[in-house]
Amino acid sequence: MTQSLTISIDAMGGDHGVQTTLPGLALARRALAADTRFQLHGDATMIEQELARLPQLKGRVEIRHTDKVIASDEKPATAVRRGKGASMWNAIEAVKSGEANGAVSCGNTGSLMAISRLILRMSVPVDRPPLVVPWPGLRGVTTMLDAGANIDCDAQRLVEFAIMGEAYHRAAHGIARPTVGILNVGSEDGKGHDEVRQAHAILKSGRFDLDYHGFVEGDDLSRNVVDVVVTDGFTGNVALKTGEGTAQYITHELRAALTSSFLAKLGALLARPALRAFRDKLNPPAAAPLLGLNGLVIKCHGGANAAAFGQSIDLAVDLAKSDFAAEIERNMTRLLVALEAPEDPVEELS
Amino acid sequence: MTQSLTISIDAMGGDHGVQTTLPGLALARRALAADTRFQLHGDATMIEQELARLPQLKGRVEIRHTDKVIASDEKPATAVRRGKGASMWNAIEAVKSGEANGAVSCGNTGSLMAISRLILRMSVPVDRPPLVVPWPGLRGVTTMLDAGANIDCDAQRLVEFAIMGEAYHRAAHGIARPTVGILNVGSEDGKGHDEVRQAHAILKSGRFDLDYHGFVEGDDLSRNVVDVVVTDGFTGNVALKTGEGTAQYITHELRAALTSSFLAKLGALLARPALRAFRDKLNPPAAAPLLGLNGLVIKCHGGANAAAFGQSIDLAVDLAKSDFAAEIERNMTRLLVALEAPEDPVEELS
Repeated sequence: MTQSLTISIDAMGGDHGVQTTLPGLALARRALAADTRFQLHGDATMIEQELARLPQLKGRVEIRHTDKVIASDEKPATAVRRGKGASMWNAIEAVKSGEANGAVSCGNTGSLMAISRLILRMSVPVDRPPLVVPWPGLRGVTTMLDAGANIDCDAQRLVEFAIMGEAYHRAAHGIARPTVGILNVGSEDGKGHDEVRQAHAILKSGRFDLDYHGFVEGDDLSRNVVDVVVTDGFTGNVALKTGEGTAQYITHELRAALTSSFLAKLGALLARPALRAFRDKLNPPAAAPLLGLNGLVIKCHGGANAAAFGQSIDLAVDLAKSDFAAEIERNMTRLLVALEAPEDPVEELS
Repeated sequence: MTQSLTISIDAMGGDHGVQTTLPGLALARRALAADTRFQLHGDATMIEQELARLPQLKGRVEIRHTDKVIASDEKPATAVRRGKGASMWNAIEAVKSGEANGAVSCGNTGSLMAISRLILRMSVPVDRPPLVVPWPGLRGVTTMLDAGANIDCDAQRLVEFAIMGEAYHRAAHGIARPTVGILNVGSEDGKGHDEVRQAHAILKSGRFDLDYHGFVEGDDLSRNVVDVVVTDGFTGNVALKTGEGTAQYITHELRAALTSSFLAKLGALLARPALRAFRDKLNPPAAAPLLGLNGLVIKCHGGANAAAFGQSIDLAVDLAKSDFAAEIERNMTRLLVALEAPEDPVEELS
């Protein structure tokens, strides 16, 4: 890469605003090494105050002042109607205008999604960018989508998620041929409902430039059996929240057990560094892209700390440098051809 | 209760056959206290050998010999075609003939379900008994159904699950008015797909003798926000396996952390009793009924130990003594009336 990239940042988003986003930016090692430039959208006074403590950002940033901020509890409909000129809005508009190669925000998901759709428009026939979840497990991280944006999904939609998730996973994790699975209640061909069986038939037809593994089950998420798991937004949301709830329950019981007696407390004290590392390992990555837009937008958790925000900046740079948008486009074209060809296993879709 | 109950037992089912089922039976405290009698189906020699060590069962059991056993990996279709005369088959037939008030088996789920449907027939319009899962969490146990038997479920099916699950939970847990929720991606009325919204409208109409709470989300399972969570077999299966996978991943990482250094190992040693109690607490109950049959059948995990098998016998007795079948019937009648009345919120179902 010889071309220098620019990333636009909603400096005000998230629980701690500039106090997280700017120190986070200073930790974005890959982005800083790659000679990336940053547009900082938000309150100039607050941004300058924070920048004074971060000499390593000197000469790399450009401040775009605005007083306006979209609150973390703003309704998406209100954000779209009255959000123009807010830091989040301006960060995304910089992508639209071509000034920036990608935008990053810790602002609320609903508003970010609504404003992104309005400004950038979808590049695929999907209604909303699928929610992408990095799912940590025994062998790394699996990309799961959709975790809740598109509730009803037909077979075509599931295949579109597969195409988007595969290209994203390659760009984000540097894996040449990510494997893809469809979430189901069993691994045999006949399992599940019509939508997953039809999507399975389309992906199995082998017309796509991706490594389709087949059906996977819920416990395969934490086993990282495949790199990308595709599902409808209803099932994906239930899976995500069920996993989160289970993790909360188990860590609660563990805490209760390790404070249940003097010996248990003493044991926990001795094992404290190990238990801390254990806890940190369970935290999933804080950043994920909104896929399927005409432009790159990265959503970072509202509660992310500086390190996590820095990772989301690095992710933005990795994605901006990659070919993932073009790869998605190529496989989407193959999908349209597959859906129109009547002589192959896909015909049952019609 | 003045009438003495009889429970028929598939003595050969499960990973360890008579070596688990008979010692387990001897641990069924509520059943033994209630003057229950037991029919033991299986190999008479093996059963007698085991009984010789269990004097507390003397005079309470009757052996029904058969050489035939349904293997743990038998396909349901084969079990139905060739299973006649097997210990599992005979145990269920004793319920059909009225000799027993309920049957308990650790045999494989698919075969047990297929044979039960064939012999007892469904009492409700549901295709298959929903798989009932006891979901342990912060405040006890939530009953979740269907965990995989009925993949496609319309609103009527979901309401039927609510009716069955509610009556079962009351009988199994002694809770007078179990609360019921429908699994969804949010708690507001408009959330989710048509099926859950319609089922929500039907249950909200208040025509049923049950305490309907509304929509719940995936993480509400481990929080035990409601006593009974209703969902289609696809979503329920994904939720169950995702929860199991998450639990396996976390306990794996915990084990790795607690063996990662000398101090961690020493700490784990000191905390060992607490960590054992923690591990035991995460184990869900091993028994659940097949609901919606004309007769009581309890499925116990194939890998259950004697204590868990004893609990499944106690569960059978609790359910046999309860009114739960009649309660289901009464609410099912209310459902039929609700579906036929055009003037209430349920009309959108048609």
